[in-house]
Amino acid sequence: MTIQLDRTRRSFALDEAVAILARTPAAIDALLRDLPEAWIAAKEGDDTWSPFDVVGHLIHGERTDWVQRARVILEHGEAVPFDPFDRFAQFAASQGRTLASLLDEFAAARAQNLRELAALRLTDADLDRRGRHPALGVVTLRQLLATWVAHDLDHLVQISRVLAKLYSDEVGPWRAYLRIISGAQG
Amino acid sequence: MTIQLDRTRRSFALDEAVAILARTPAAIDALLRDLPEAWIAAKEGDDTWSPFDVVGHLIHGERTDWVQRARVILEHGEAVPFDPFDRFAQFAASQGRTLASLLDEFAAARAQNLRELAALRLTDADLDRRGRHPALGVVTLRQLLATWVAHDLDHLVQISRVLAKLYSDEVGPWRAYLRIISGAQG
Repeated sequence: MTIQLDRTRRSFALDEAVAILARTPAAIDALLRDLPEAWIAAKEGDDTWSPFDVVGHLIHGERTDWVQRARVILEHGEAVPFDPFDRFAQFAASQGRTLASLLDEFAAARAQNLRELAALRLTDADLDRRGRHPALGVVTLRQLLATWVAHDLDHLVQISRVLAKLYSDEVGPWRAYLRIISGAQG
Repeated sequence: MTIQLDRTRRSFALDEAVAILARTPAAIDALLRDLPEAWIAAKEGDDTWSPFDVVGHLIHGERTDWVQRARVILEHGEAVPFDPFDRFAQFAASQGRTLASLLDEFAAARAQNLRELAALRLTDADLDRRGRHPALGVVTLRQLLATWVAHDLDHLVQISRVLAKLYSDEVGPWRAYLRIISGAQG
């Protein structure tokens, strides 16, 4: 374990990663369930995703990405590259679904994946094992699991940002103080 | 009501604003409660706020900002400027507190403020009423309430971003795909 010199970086720890992964479905549910349709369908522009689209994308990750790729690393190492991830699968898969049913499916799929992850009883040596990403090349199991965490949070940022931007005009002069809307990095 | 021409902007509607304001405390609670201390105290650098700091800031807003400023507008219009908001009050006020107690306080204060807001029985004409911000000048009650919503979401973005950045190094080559970490605008 690396000594933490400041509060801006954290060494990967499996129990901490799981603590985040276990919480994000409930956080997204608390934010989105039963919101008016216009908010669920909000977008930032053409070729951007709505909160509804993002939940579908997160489900597709649970089905095809994180734990499945962990198994590929453990079984095949660098010999077998991961299947490419389909970033657009949710547009067909979510067709005709309600947000409520997507939120339920995401929570259930995540819970199942965390059970499967626990059953792998990963050691520190396992976390160092290497696999092959079809575009990025060699990656470790630790990097895969850290990315699962950051990916959840990245999409929680996205959902919150898309919603906030709906009021870009309505906030009037306050837009100067709101970093999401003004676009200032912070 | 303005016709919505696309999905990127939304005219202010009080019931929709309340729908968001009622959800954010639970979303933040679901994300943060009982997380390991290092995550609660995470920062992006000097003079930036941790998730713990942000919750204290949100409480201070409930105590001194949104509904209080709405009352100033309704009672005094442009004649009496709002009291300036103290962006650093939480550093003293949260001293020695637990995150759990701050989350509880935020949820209770928000619920109370939404009850007070409902009791005002605001009309569309009320939403057009004008007040005076000490720095920004003339603003409307509608802009104040829209900002309350966007401000919640701006800080949910911030909390999620601070947490994600802890794994900036641990994600390895995947950092290119994670917009929070790569800094790409999206």
